[in-house]
Amino acid sequence: MAANEFSTSHRVVYYEVDDTGHLTLAMLINLFVLVSEDQNAALALSTEFVQSHGVGWVVTQYHIQVTALPQTGDQVTLKTRATAYNKYFAYREYWLVDAAGNELAYAEGIWVTMSYANRKIAAIPAEIMAPYQTEPVVRLPRLPRPDRVADEVTMAEKPYAVRYFDIDNNGHVNNAHYFDWMLDALPADFLRGHQPTDIRIRYENEVKYGQTVTSAYVQPDESLTSQHLIHSGNVLAANATIKWQKKA
Amino acid sequence: MAANEFSTSHRVVYYEVDDTGHLTLAMLINLFVLVSEDQNAALALSTEFVQSHGVGWVVTQYHIQVTALPQTGDQVTLKTRATAYNKYFAYREYWLVDAAGNELAYAEGIWVTMSYANRKIAAIPAEIMAPYQTEPVVRLPRLPRPDRVADEVTMAEKPYAVRYFDIDNNGHVNNAHYFDWMLDALPADFLRGHQPTDIRIRYENEVKYGQTVTSAYVQPDESLTSQHLIHSGNVLAANATIKWQKKA
Repeated sequence: MAANEFSTSHRVVYYEVDDTGHLTLAMLINLFVLVSEDQNAALALSTEFVQSHGVGWVVTQYHIQVTALPQTGDQVTLKTRATAYNKYFAYREYWLVDAAGNELAYAEGIWVTMSYANRKIAAIPAEIMAPYQTEPVVRLPRLPRPDRVADEVTMAEKPYAVRYFDIDNNGHVNNAHYFDWMLDALPADFLRGHQPTDIRIRYENEVKYGQTVTSAYVQPDESLTSQHLIHSGNVLAANATIKWQKKA
Repeated sequence: MAANEFSTSHRVVYYEVDDTGHLTLAMLINLFVLVSEDQNAALALSTEFVQSHGVGWVVTQYHIQVTALPQTGDQVTLKTRATAYNKYFAYREYWLVDAAGNELAYAEGIWVTMSYANRKIAAIPAEIMAPYQTEPVVRLPRLPRPDRVADEVTMAEKPYAVRYFDIDNNGHVNNAHYFDWMLDALPADFLRGHQPTDIRIRYENEVKYGQTVTSAYVQPDESLTSQHLIHSGNVLAANATIKWQKKA
């Protein structure tokens, strides 16, 4: 039995792109989460149903590989599948496909269920996994982690106040905004001339409204790799390693 | 002969809403501009065609009246019409309608064409108006202006750095972001409990990437009206008056 795949179509519009007309990384994550939420809705896995088991889904890690980013007006298809899970972790895959059927991006995510009672990771309730028709496995695929930035490396940093409109309907900072903070810290000329190709990100601790985060970064070197740390005070909120290539 | 009306449908999704699940004001503006861009595309009025006449469209003023804001999952219809124009100004209307045909929001905008040669307002080229089948008029409707804030009023203020991802494909700050700066400055508890019902905004001067703007505001008083000024240095970029009502 294979896990159910789910897909939805989307038209890329002007407010989803950067000043070169390409879909932003933050919006790519928004769209991947959207297709998984659409799958949940189709399977009657509402937020309320999940919450009725005392837990909520939280993403801990993504690995995203980008071949090309679509442009304003492009019709794309988003696909997802809750591919595998074990007692504590669920492994989900995502695809972004163009109108001709070419894969533009592929992502993997590791999700956990957090208990509302003690804010700790809880065993995934069977009832909220069953509708995906996903088989439990013993060993899940491991996603590559961001690089470790050596302590002696000096990182430049920029502050970002968490805004009211960064908070989603669940009261958390929408995970896509971490990419706004990470990427905005890089020089505009670099962003304009380069496209991310491989993104490894880990979410460690939640950020709340009213806090100011620090986006620390090591600019892309000859290997076109940038390093990113988001801190709230001394607490690491997220870290990422991003590989880039020159835009065609 | 009446001006052509144009409409498009849209599904409100999770990253377009605030933490109460309602469409944000910034996203409402994005959607109104989207339906007018869709109309332009349908009439072969591409950005390149407009630019080939040496000009670009710039909005100077909106008046937006909101009955209710749609929520995540709602299917809505966006409508627009290039209702009237004279030598220098074009008057455009916008509607947001729910699935049952109820009007949720109505907006009017005044647009001008700016010359690329001297960055000044230019007479609107006939060729870029003709496809709308809009009759020229001598006198256009006047939109109500924001209130004048008396000099002796002390305004609180918050700084916002213009981010790379605030810049659209035309190299300008997307006009919707002014609402993020204006509204984020207000207390979250107020935003959570109130809905904007009447918004008067004027755009005076462009803001550029790399600048830091100041969002000055007078908090809503008993009349539930807030005042907003966005400055870049000493230059007024935009001002607005917003009326609010308690959320139902």
